[in-house]
Amino acid sequence: MLTRRSFLGGLSASLGAAAAVDLRAWPFDAAQGRPKTPDLQHLRIDAGKLRARLETLSTFGRPAGGTFADGVSRVAYSDADVGGRGFVMAEMRAAGLQPRIDPAGNIFARREGTIPGLPPILFGSHIDSVPNGGNFDGDLGSLGALAGIEALDAAGIRTRHPLEMVIWAHEEGFAFGRGIACSRIVAGLVTSADMQQVWNGMTRADAIRKIGGDPDRIADARRPKGAHHCYLELHIEQGGTLERAGIPVGVVEGIVAIDRYEAVITGVANHAGTTPIAERQDAMLAAAHLTVAVRDAVTRRPGRQVGTVGQIEITPNSPNVIPGLARMSIELRDLSTATLAAMMDDIRARAREIAAATRTTIAFSQEMSAAPAAATPEVQGAIERAAAALGLGASRLPSGAGHDAQNMALLGPMGMIFVPSVGGISHSPKELTRWDDCARGADVLLRTVLDMDRVE
Amino acid sequence: MLTRRSFLGGLSASLGAAAAVDLRAWPFDAAQGRPKTPDLQHLRIDAGKLRARLETLSTFGRPAGGTFADGVSRVAYSDADVGGRGFVMAEMRAAGLQPRIDPAGNIFARREGTIPGLPPILFGSHIDSVPNGGNFDGDLGSLGALAGIEALDAAGIRTRHPLEMVIWAHEEGFAFGRGIACSRIVAGLVTSADMQQVWNGMTRADAIRKIGGDPDRIADARRPKGAHHCYLELHIEQGGTLERAGIPVGVVEGIVAIDRYEAVITGVANHAGTTPIAERQDAMLAAAHLTVAVRDAVTRRPGRQVGTVGQIEITPNSPNVIPGLARMSIELRDLSTATLAAMMDDIRARAREIAAATRTTIAFSQEMSAAPAAATPEVQGAIERAAAALGLGASRLPSGAGHDAQNMALLGPMGMIFVPSVGGISHSPKELTRWDDCARGADVLLRTVLDMDRVE
Repeated sequence: MLTRRSFLGGLSASLGAAAAVDLRAWPFDAAQGRPKTPDLQHLRIDAGKLRARLETLSTFGRPAGGTFADGVSRVAYSDADVGGRGFVMAEMRAAGLQPRIDPAGNIFARREGTIPGLPPILFGSHIDSVPNGGNFDGDLGSLGALAGIEALDAAGIRTRHPLEMVIWAHEEGFAFGRGIACSRIVAGLVTSADMQQVWNGMTRADAIRKIGGDPDRIADARRPKGAHHCYLELHIEQGGTLERAGIPVGVVEGIVAIDRYEAVITGVANHAGTTPIAERQDAMLAAAHLTVAVRDAVTRRPGRQVGTVGQIEITPNSPNVIPGLARMSIELRDLSTATLAAMMDDIRARAREIAAATRTTIAFSQEMSAAPAAATPEVQGAIERAAAALGLGASRLPSGAGHDAQNMALLGPMGMIFVPSVGGISHSPKELTRWDDCARGADVLLRTVLDMDRVE
Repeated sequence: MLTRRSFLGGLSASLGAAAAVDLRAWPFDAAQGRPKTPDLQHLRIDAGKLRARLETLSTFGRPAGGTFADGVSRVAYSDADVGGRGFVMAEMRAAGLQPRIDPAGNIFARREGTIPGLPPILFGSHIDSVPNGGNFDGDLGSLGALAGIEALDAAGIRTRHPLEMVIWAHEEGFAFGRGIACSRIVAGLVTSADMQQVWNGMTRADAIRKIGGDPDRIADARRPKGAHHCYLELHIEQGGTLERAGIPVGVVEGIVAIDRYEAVITGVANHAGTTPIAERQDAMLAAAHLTVAVRDAVTRRPGRQVGTVGQIEITPNSPNVIPGLARMSIELRDLSTATLAAMMDDIRARAREIAAATRTTIAFSQEMSAAPAAATPEVQGAIERAAAALGLGASRLPSGAGHDAQNMALLGPMGMIFVPSVGGISHSPKELTRWDDCARGADVLLRTVLDMDRVE
């Protein structure tokens, strides 16, 4: 007679490692007098259906007269966003789920597990986009999650933990700013005072009502630590590392810390014709040297840290006036906060030299500091096992972009799966992940769910 | 008996050099039976009256509740400009002149000379200002011209040539752009088509009507070559060269040529978090290197040439996006067009290296090219003699700023007198020229008029 232990051993082998599927969840094989052995070796999501759904979703917010290749503008709280959410919820219902919208506007749907009292495995992504964005950022992780649940249904597999799929609202932060993405509400990082913020003539409260949330009960959207067993998210890499290396699966080590500063450079505005070079106190020249200094501070040390001057405003900004004032952004990202601090020390030291040489003053103020969110080592291991079981190469890498996962990391174990972005292009209609890479990513997500399900 | 020749010799000595005053213009001394010898040694403008007029003029366009030190906003065609022009014309009438407004809106007033048929000596400046400008730019040269005519009246001196005082309209070019200053209309550089340009809800034609001009007869404002004997303009330096050197009089060698370019730098906008440094095509980084290159091209050769990056716009200009596009101005000024060309060659060569290193493209388009306007050597000599006669040190220097004088240089001999600007500050409420320097400048202007009057 097959013991539970030996059965699990067999299952583990077929999962490629020590995965577990709860006995009680398995369809019973009456002929054999024991639960059916699920065909894990051939467990795959429906790649055709995933593609079809991504293509249909792309029509919500598509430019007039455009095609899939023209990308999408599905900014959170827009009519296109409401339409896209309606489509996804309809697909969820068609898959037998019962989507519900939490007070923050996030969409959740639960598939019960077999062991009462276990917390759910939470996984999903978002479907809002930046203006003129692409059709994979968020969409793949959202519809890939649904595809995984359908694959389990098709294979007759029940998990021990409940499975909870989520479509986060307002991830891109375009409407009301990155700082109040709706996964932050769930993590308890947004207060009801934030509901009065106005964008595009709409308060945050009205925006949340528009997508079916309830701003008056916003505190009820908050979840406690340990509310889920773990959080998993499939996402496009948005950078070109995986594609260049020819590796289909990225195992995210963590989401980088971000330090953002504003540098205010004060010189003296003066006539561009009558002021000799030696007398100038040119804020633009100082800003130029500082921009080069930021690049130097990033590249003078080994590692994958990045630094960007993405914004500059100079005053009076006239061809015939020496700029008297410059304001520029400096953004530094790395998994290590020590590296961020060391880069900024370099930049400050260089700024003192530049200020002296240009006879300007340079003052820094920190505008934002986002802590790094480490992916849980056990989840990283589960993703690697899942990829190996599918015969897919995998590589660890940091996420240079922020994700809802960083907020969920505050509540419990977290892991992310990356798939290649062609050319590393994202937040653009040119954003592209090949269909087979999309399917592979969803398969890895599904197997990671099953692997994590064995962990108590 | 005193011959005309010997009389002129004595006059020349009192003017400090070979100046001439026409015999026939001199008051007759009945007791001596010959014309009175004018007291040129003590010929001075009324410094107190000049100051009082500058202070009164400063109230037209003064910030509410402000003082003289708060500067002025007397933008051309504004109500403040109309008010200021009314004040100046009233003062001209009080001085016995009959101001008339030409079709372009410029104010002229003529004091007849003694020899019929000689062309007038034209001198003056403007009274419009930049927003938040100072109380000396233009105002000094305008009221200094009036003070000179009054001093001649007080001394009973008549000149051989008619004297013509002018207050140019719209010199600063704030309203409709530098390219159509009203002295350009007189020089024949503006067509009637330009009258339909709109600024601040007002067509150029209506603006000219507002200040008493007649846009329907705009072509009649044009004057032919040789219409005046010479053009003279007293102006503040707007740079700090004279003040630093402790020299009260600047003899302008010419008005610099200006070449203005737009550099368009095209990179690739991408995610500031997910794009590794090695993959970036950062237009802002390229713009920073190019800004430094402009400075290097200017300073690597001896001379007084200047170059300025005064304007920059980057796209999308967001802290978390690598800039994909940058547009920046490059403005180069020098008396020598060969120097301008050599500097631009340096900048283009450096731009090719920067484009290659940053994987961007850099394209230049020339936005403006203003030819240099040399001051006539004879007029420069007259100014130097005038300063020497007054015991004032003088130094030759270029004008880095544009002036109405450059347009008058197209019609005949031209010269400019500069007086020191404290701290080299201009186009600012902090613009300051000491009262005694103002008076000295007007005295030099007056003696230069008399010196030029002897030239046939």
